[in-house]
Formats: sequence, C-alpha cells, structure tokens
Amino acid sequence: MIFTAKQIADFLQGEIIGNSEVKVSNFAKIEEGKPGTLTFLANPKYTHYIYETNADIVLVNHDFVAEKPIKSTLIKVPNAYAALASLLEMVNNTRPQKTGIDPMSFIAPTAQVGDDVYVAAFAYIGEHVKIADGAKIYPHAYIGDGVTVGKNTLVYSGVHIYYDCVIGDECILHSGAVIGADGFGFSHENEEYHKIPQMGNVVLENQVEVGANTTIDRAVMGSTFIRHGVKLDNLIQIAHNCEIGENTVMAAQTGIAGSTKIGDRAVLGGQVGIGGHIAIGNDVHIGAQSGIISNIKEGSEIMGSPAVPVKQFFKSSIIIPKLPDMYRQLNALQKEIEALKEKLTSAPEG
Amino acid sequence: MIFTAKQIADFLQGEIIGNSEVKVSNFAKIEEGKPGTLTFLANPKYTHYIYETNADIVLVNHDFVAEKPIKSTLIKVPNAYAALASLLEMVNNTRPQKTGIDPMSFIAPTAQVGDDVYVAAFAYIGEHVKIADGAKIYPHAYIGDGVTVGKNTLVYSGVHIYYDCVIGDECILHSGAVIGADGFGFSHENEEYHKIPQMGNVVLENQVEVGANTTIDRAVMGSTFIRHGVKLDNLIQIAHNCEIGENTVMAAQTGIAGSTKIGDRAVLGGQVGIGGHIAIGNDVHIGAQSGIISNIKEGSEIMGSPAVPVKQFFKSSIIIPKLPDMYRQLNALQKEIEALKEKLTSAPEG
Amino acid sequence: MIFTAKQIADFLQGEIIGNSEVKVSNFAKIEEGKPGTLTFLANPKYTHYIYETNADIVLVNHDFVAEKPIKSTLIKVPNAYAALASLLEMVNNTRPQKTGIDPMSFIAPTAQVGDDVYVAAFAYIGEHVKIADGAKIYPHAYIGDGVTVGKNTLVYSGVHIYYDCVIGDECILHSGAVIGADGFGFSHENEEYHKIPQMGNVVLENQVEVGANTTIDRAVMGSTFIRHGVKLDNLIQIAHNCEIGENTVMAAQTGIAGSTKIGDRAVLGGQVGIGGHIAIGNDVHIGAQSGIISNIKEGSEIMGSPAVPVKQFFKSSIIIPKLPDMYRQLNALQKEIEALKEKLTSAPEG
Repeated sequence: MIFTAKQIADFLQGEIIGNSEVKVSNFAKIEEGKPGTLTFLANPKYTHYIYETNADIVLVNHDFVAEKPIKSTLIKVPNAYAALASLLEMVNNTRPQKTGIDPMSFIAPTAQVGDDVYVAAFAYIGEHVKIADGAKIYPHAYIGDGVTVGKNTLVYSGVHIYYDCVIGDECILHSGAVIGADGFGFSHENEEYHKIPQMGNVVLENQVEVGANTTIDRAVMGSTFIRHGVKLDNLIQIAHNCEIGENTVMAAQTGIAGSTKIGDRAVLGGQVGIGGHIAIGNDVHIGAQSGIISNIKEGSEIMGSPAVPVKQFFKSSIIIPKLPDMYRQLNALQKEIEALKEKLTSAPEG
Repeated sequence: MIFTAKQIADFLQGEIIGNSEVKVSNFAKIEEGKPGTLTFLANPKYTHYIYETNADIVLVNHDFVAEKPIKSTLIKVPNAYAALASLLEMVNNTRPQKTGIDPMSFIAPTAQVGDDVYVAAFAYIGEHVKIADGAKIYPHAYIGDGVTVGKNTLVYSGVHIYYDCVIGDECILHSGAVIGADGFGFSHENEEYHKIPQMGNVVLENQVEVGANTTIDRAVMGSTFIRHGVKLDNLIQIAHNCEIGENTVMAAQTGIAGSTKIGDRAVLGGQVGIGGHIAIGNDVHIGAQSGIISNIKEGSEIMGSPAVPVKQFFKSSIIIPKLPDMYRQLNALQKEIEALKEKLTSAPEG
Repeated sequence: MIFTAKQIADFLQGEIIGNSEVKVSNFAKIEEGKPGTLTFLANPKYTHYIYETNADIVLVNHDFVAEKPIKSTLIKVPNAYAALASLLEMVNNTRPQKTGIDPMSFIAPTAQVGDDVYVAAFAYIGEHVKIADGAKIYPHAYIGDGVTVGKNTLVYSGVHIYYDCVIGDECILHSGAVIGADGFGFSHENEEYHKIPQMGNVVLENQVEVGANTTIDRAVMGSTFIRHGVKLDNLIQIAHNCEIGENTVMAAQTGIAGSTKIGDRAVLGGQVGIGGHIAIGNDVHIGAQSGIISNIKEGSEIMGSPAVPVKQFFKSSIIIPKLPDMYRQLNALQKEIEALKEKLTSAPEG
C-alpha cells in the first residue's frame, strides 16, 4: 500500500495539518516511527514521542494541541485509536484472501460445503459437517463429524473441533485451539477413576474469537456455551458445562472450572482461576491472577486469591511486606504491657 | 437412541416410580431437563430442581424421599451418578466407531500396525512405530519414530508424540497434547545457555488420560513416568524426569517442574505450581493455585503459595483483608502504650 | 552406541579411576544407574548415591574425593555436568537425521527451499516462504505465506507460524508452538469489542528455543521481538509487541502482557504473570508464580504477587500463617490497654 496524507484524511474525514502530499507505506508505533510510516497518538502517556517521531503522518485526536514544533504531518480525527483501527482494517482487507478447495484436503462425502469457502491442503472435514458460505478452513484444521461452521468464520491451522460442536458466524479460531475435547469427569470407585462419557457439545455463538491453544471442553450433557461476541485470549481453559456471557473478554491463561456461569460484559485479567459451579454476575471485573471460590455479584471489581474488592486487595498488599515488622512490634508491645501491668500491680495503690 | 423407563430400569436393575412406558432420547442436567430427556439427582444441593424439572425420567438414589409431587418418572438405584455414568457409557458405545487405514495417512514401511486399528487421513506413523490392536489414530496425529501405542488407546487429532515414547493400553490423548518434547535443560556458560540433549523418553502406563494441549516432556535420561490410571486435565505441564503416581488426578493448567515425584492417589487443583526435585507423598490434596516449594508428607491437605495446611490457609485468608486495620490499630496501641508509660513515669509513685 | 571408559575419557580428556575397559551403552541418573550405563555426579546433594549406584561409569568433578569404596569406574573431568552435556550431544548427533522433501508435503510454487532441508509428509509451506539450508520442517508444521525460516532451524510437528513472521538460524520450535497469531487487541464501542487488525509480525532471532504449545502473538504494527538466545519453556504466552531480551529464560506457563519489554539475561520462574506496558531491566530474577505490575530495575530479585524483593517475600510468607494468632493477640492487647487505662484513671493519683 502507498497512500498520501490527503487520501488518508479523505478516508477518515479528518483534517490535515502539514504536507498533504507526503506518502506512507506502513504503520509504526509512535516511538518506532520511521520515514514512510503512519502512526497515532491516543494515550497521553506517549505525547512526548510526537515531537521526536520520524513517522511521516500522525493521527491525533481533535483536541490535540502541539506545544512544540512537529516534523510529521498531522491528521486530526475525533478518535485517533478508532481511526487507526479502521485504517488497519481497510489495509488488512486488501491482503490476498485464500479461497478454493485444495485437492490435498479431506472432505467426507456427507459434508456440505458452502460458496466461497477455503479448504486448505491437509484440512480435514468429517462426516455430516456443514461449512457455511465464506468460511475459511486452514491447513491441519480438524472439523469432526457433525460439526457446523458458520458464515465467514476463520478456522486457522491446527484448530481441532470435536464432533457435533456448533461454531457461529464470523468467529475466529486461532491455531491450536481445541473445541469440544472431553470434559474432565470421572466417578471415583475403589481408588480408581472411571470416565464419565462426555456426551454434550460446545456451542460458540456469533463473533466469538478464540485464542491460540485455548481449550473449551464439551459438556457432559447439554452444551458448554460461549455467547455472542466473547473474546478469549490464548491458552485459556473453559471446562465442561460452563457458560460465558455475551461480550465478555478474558486475558491469557485464565481457567474456568466446570459448570461455572459468567455474566455479560465481564472482563477477566490473565491467569485468573475460577472454581466450579460458581455464578459470576454481569459487568464483573476480575484482576489478573485472582482466584474465585464463591459467587460474585454483578458490577463487582475484585482481585486476589481468594479475591476481595480490588481496593481492599491493594491496601492489604501494601501491608504484607510490613508483616515481619508488625510481628516484632506486636510482641514488643506485649512485653511492654506485661511490664506496665507488673509496674501497676507492684506500685502501692495510693 | 430411544429408551423407555422400563428398558432403562432393567439395564440399571433399578426400581421405577411412575410411568414405566415414558420414552427418552437424550440426557439433560436436572435444571435444563426437557420432555424426552433423562436426568439424575446426586448432589443434594440440586434437590429442589426435581420438583420443577421437565425431564421425563430422573435417576435418584435409593434413599431419596420426595417431599412434594414430582411430574417425572423416577428410577431408584443405589448410586444415581454411577448409574448415569453406565447409561452414558452404554449410549456412547453405540456411536459409530472409526476404523480402517485411510489411504491419505502416512505409515512408515517399518511401522507395525495391529488389528482393528484406525489410522485417519493425515495421521503420521513414523519408522519402527508399533500400534497395538484396537488403537485409533485421528487426523493430524504425529507418532514419532520408535513410539509404541498400546491396545485400544485413542490418540485424538493433533496429538504429537516424539520419538521413542511409550504409550500404554486404554489411554486417551486429547487434541494438542504433546508427549516427549525436549525437557528444559541447559548448561549456563559465558552468559549463554547451551542445550543439554534430552535423550530419555516419556512412559505413559495404562488407562492414562491426557487433556487437550497438555505437555509432558521427555527425560534428559531415563524416563518421565505417568503411572497407571493418572488423569491429567488440559494445559498441564509435566517437566522432564517427573514421576506421577498411580491414580493421581490434576486439574487444568497445573505445572510440575523437573524431577519432582508425586505419589499415588494425589488430587491437585487447577493452576497449581510445584517446584523441581520435590517429593509429594501418597494421598496428598493440593488446593487450586497453590505453590509448592518443599517436600509434602503423605495425606497432607495443603493450599496457598507457599502452601500451608488448608485450614490454616483459609484462616489466614480471612485476616488478610483486615491487615490495613490491624496496621492502624497496632500503631495506635503503640502510641497509647507510650502515653501510659509516660503517665506512669511522670506520676508520683505513692 | 557402545563405548569403553577409555574412549569416553579420551573424548572428554578426563582421568580414569578404575577399569578402563568397562563398556556402557546408555545414560542413567545416578539413583537409577544400572550395569551398562554411564552417569554423573554434579549436585553434592546426590553424593551418597555414588556409593550405591550400579552404573558402570560415573563422571565426577576433578575435586571429588571418595569417602568409601565405589564399584563404578570414575572419570574425573573439570565439570561433570558440562562433560555429560558434551557426551549427550555427541551421541545425539549420531541419531539418524531426517532429510529430503516428502512427496506428501505441500510446498507453494513461490516458496524457496534451501539445501539439505527436510520437509515431512503433511508439512505445509506457504507462498513466498524461504526455508534456509539445513532446516527441518516436521509433519503437520504450518509455515504461513511470506515466512522465513533460518539455517538449521528445527520446526517440529504441529508448529504453526502465521504469515510474514521471521524465524532465525538454529532455532528450535517444539510441537504445538504458535508463532504470530493475532494479538488480543480490540476497540470497545457500544458494549461490543471490535477487532483491531494485527498487522505486524513476530521476529525470532538466532538460537531461540520455543517450548511445546507456547504462543507468541504478532504485533499490532511493527514486531514482537524474541532476541538472540532466548529460551522459552512450554505453554508460555507472549503478547503482541513484547520484546524479550537476549539470553533470557522463562519457565513454563509464564505469561507476558502486551508491549512489555524484558531485558537481557533475565530468569523467570514458572507461572509468572507480567502486566502490559512494563519495563523489566537486565539480569532480573523473578520467582515462580510472581505477579508484576510495575517496572523492575535491573538486577532485582523479586517474588510474590504483587512482587517484592525475594527475601522480603519469604519473610512475610513465614508470618502469614501466624496472622490469626496475631489478630487475636492484637485484640487482646487492645483490651488490656483499655483495662490499664481504666485502672490508671480510676487509681488515686498520689
């Protein structure tokens, strides 16, 4: 891609300050900006970089006021980050799109494949699978028997989807994601564990994104539900019979034990652990590395293991390093009080 | 499947209370029971659902006594959960079984493949591999040179087994599991790390289940051992030269560092971390998110990071949010004592 | 392999004590030493095993002095562990090497493949890929369009490398590693998350090792950098736009959030979590399960969540189990002081 500042400002309906004919061919972060690149300033923490950057174009918010001279051409827009996102998306859409059925793929005779579908070499499509229009199935993806994959969904290389799972429209499944492996369910008899067959499935509604190497287990019966618009980062574990509410997001390496329900619009940090059979309300925020062992009311902001309100967590965290001193101080006070009591007792009373 | 209550009661040798001719075609959780489904009641916490469920059949324990009218047909059995498990297994066994060697598989000329084996399209079987009777190797599974796979073992899609590892009978390896990748071993010289070749292997004994995307590293020499009946959930890390005792179970995202030995029948929660060269006794229970940095005696129940006895962990956890108050209280007491001492010293003695 | 003690001593330039003609054909740990094996003694903790081991040869440090008779032949070397490593490497190099292009691989017409390259059955090499001399691409590895793979790099089975990533020379990528999946970046509008296209890539410099099922996300723009000699264990998450400095090592299941920079020669324990936009200096040591939420100065040794200096962490950890007693003691003291004040106030003053 090569664009002038004018072309970009026209696309974004932004205002140019500087040379409207300067050309860029790539994006850069503001601290790494080189000639020929476009960058953006959204986070005020990075403002000082705008006076040094070598990027030729910087997208800035409408209310940005320069305090020193700037080499770059500025394009003022209502929201620099959103403007960047739409530019990135526009350029991304110009990338060549994979299409067609590769002869080195495996498609079972009973599978149904829609229009404008990509099925790569070494992709495996099982019996009775339905692949909707516009879906893309990359190499080494495994679509088990009876699975449905929705419209325009991307299934990247090495995704594994076990039988009978349902994947919605416009989902993105990243490499190594495993959807519908058996839940971890056993009956315990005579000191051995006997497998409980996991007969349910996983349902991903529309616009769900699943990160690389994330695992979502099939239900023992019924479904594990990932609702509309959920975004899961990498290496997350969702156990059997969980339900993750609409537009909830989870950072990497978080794990949710079986039958737990999480509400809508929840935000979970990385490496969070949530126990089984727990209910988390809507709009809950959970800090990184938290451990949750009981139900959480909607709107809560919590952190720690076990989790407490986030402010309380940080207040206690400040005290913990003082514990050895507190311990000594407490025992010193104990002795002082003993001494005072001694003194008072031995002192003649009047 | 379609079964009448009578057929199910006969299979389970249970007692029918209600309509013996009602038919079901699927399973459901008691809170999600719909007409045409069978459910169960094992956990007393869920008892209230039995009076509302629309499931047509409910498996209950022999000692269950209804306190209100119930719409559903009940089948009384000694253990409702175990009865459910055997029903699920019976139905699961009626699912079509994969079989045969797909012409789009790769089987090295020196490999030996037993009877009734399934080798899927895009499965890779290396040199000198031995696949025993009844094993099933799904698409994109990689069986490295010299590996043996035991009888009736399931190797799901995208499992990777490095050379010379040994997989027992009736094991289940879920998608993305990696068995026998190099242990993390380096010698440190001149500020650089030099790889120590990892020449050992991994041995899985019989009836081991390995979750999706779990990794078990090969030994530097000798073997990493996963003993009979061990069940590992998803995204677990077992480092080189570990030994996991018989019938031990681990929840998801737990990690065990190198050369650590865990006894028989241990139960580990999720996201536990155990240091290297540690010995954990038999029958140890370790709570979720614990960190273990020293040997643990058999039968211990521990939690926390560093871990302490589980009761102690929870007792301390209750106090931690009170720390800021304790800190203030302690310093206030300190001042009060100073004041008292002052008063006592300045007071005329007698 | 079969070697005599003499052959091994010659190779290592070591000194033999005992039978120079004894033959070994395998390696063993000292506590598992059997006839026909060679072992080593480096960690003094294991010294007592040398008097019991059945290994025929033991590598020992030059300064080792036996306190009792030893059955085995000893070979004295300056550094027993380094000597073992070079022996293991020598033997490892005698293992048959994979080579050649398998006809069941997929290589795009525009890809360039160097000399002495191995491309296995079911390996996928995309458009405009460059595979340098001596690289090995195992089954089910996916090399996306425009990727370059350096000299002698090993890409094991089931590794997935997204488009335009750059992999250096002499790297090792273990099974299930995912390089260059989309970073977790969304703009938040109207209670929904909209994907920010991730247009950058991942750059692995030379001699980087990436563990099984580890994920390294591509940058939103620019590159996620893994510098020379970095060693990453299994199941690690590196988010978009991170930079990991030279010769840094990380143990399993650690996660680094977006845009964080880690210095050279850092050592991270397992299950560490580091927040986004953080700077970690050179030579920092971070204990297992730590949580890092602010910048860390070079040379720091820290632990805990939130992390504090490692000594402070352990000092506080010792006090935490005493908290319930401290709480009781503090409240008892409060009462005693109240009582003392009462007494002092009510006592006639002189």
